[in-house]
Amino acid sequence: MIRGKVTGRVWATKRIDTLPVGSLLEVDVAGTTIIAFDPLGCAEGEDVLITQGSVAAGYFTKIKAPVDALIIGSIDEN
Amino acid sequence: MIRGKVTGRVWATKRIDTLPVGSLLEVDVAGTTIIAFDPLGCAEGEDVLITQGSVAAGYFTKIKAPVDALIIGSIDEN
Amino acid sequence: MIRGKVTGRVWATKRIDTLPVGSLLEVDVAGTTIIAFDPLGCAEGEDVLITQGSVAAGYFTKIKAPVDALIIGSIDEN
Amino acid sequence: MIRGKVTGRVWATKRIDTLPVGSLLEVDVAGTTIIAFDPLGCAEGEDVLITQGSVAAGYFTKIKAPVDALIIGSIDEN
Amino acid sequence: MIRGKVTGRVWATKRIDTLPVGSLLEVDVAGTTIIAFDPLGCAEGEDVLITQGSVAAGYFTKIKAPVDALIIGSIDEN
Repeated sequence: MIRGKVTGRVWATKRIDTLPVGSLLEVDVAGTTIIAFDPLGCAEGEDVLITQGSVAAGYFTKIKAPVDALIIGSIDEN
Repeated sequence: MIRGKVTGRVWATKRIDTLPVGSLLEVDVAGTTIIAFDPLGCAEGEDVLITQGSVAAGYFTKIKAPVDALIIGSIDEN
Repeated sequence: MIRGKVTGRVWATKRIDTLPVGSLLEVDVAGTTIIAFDPLGCAEGEDVLITQGSVAAGYFTKIKAPVDALIIGSIDEN
Repeated sequence: MIRGKVTGRVWATKRIDTLPVGSLLEVDVAGTTIIAFDPLGCAEGEDVLITQGSVAAGYFTKIKAPVDALIIGSIDEN
Repeated sequence: MIRGKVTGRVWATKRIDTLPVGSLLEVDVAGTTIIAFDPLGCAEGEDVLITQGSVAAGYFTKIKAPVDALIIGSIDEN
């Protein structure tokens, strides 16, 4: 997994039907921005744990979701 | 997912049979160019959301499409 | 696989239900940090072997775990 | 997908049994060389479209081919 | 696939049960080291062809092996 910090959110009104409704967060990972689906309700500035690839899509069991980056946890502060 | 900007389109007349008919767009992602299949009819200059790997191929349900990058949404302007 | 050195551990109290209970270790891989699930009980400073992607998730046979990085061995010292 | 230019060919007489017979081309992709299986008969200097990962292996339907990079098209000149 | 040169071997006595017995070789790929499973008996200094990801794991048909990098051929000298 990779660790990143939430920096914003994106919206996509024009989208394919199988993209689940939910938050698409911008996450900074060591200077690179990726967009991850967030099932946990994370906020800007939060440190999160992200899984990628087909493993991320596997979270969605009823649909074949085109999601290749998923927030799976919020990292506890020390 | 990753975010990119559409910069052009490519055509491949000589192709394998299972490559679906449809737009193959050039997308700039942080300075790197990738080629993504576009089911949404995006235009040059549009900011798009791309999913990659086997998750992208999963969009095609009737054929085993050799597509590892798919545009899944057009990012709304702020 | 990739080789890395364990540098710490992270905790995520707020997490998705399918993330297995167990150690999530920070591993330095050539200057980049990744977070890997550790079924072996490795310690800080240990050199480990990591597998990634859906292959990592395949280790978990009873659940569909959102784990894309798994420690599969501890590298013997020369 | 990624775009690259064919720069050469490699032969591997000592190989695992499941590697299909066929061309293994060296392709330059933005300064990096990858080796892709070529079912289209591409020539040196040709600009090609490559798909990667399990999507590439999915092209082979009768065998479980260990191919993670496949040429799926030859890019038309403008 | 990627091309690399064998530079050494690693041993991992402490390992998960599903990691197959066999050589784990260090391979230099354009300056980066990866560890690949070697079913071919390659030697240090040999140029090899490597496949990655779930495609590599697919080589193992009787077990669900946590192998994401596999040597599939030894490149012939010109």
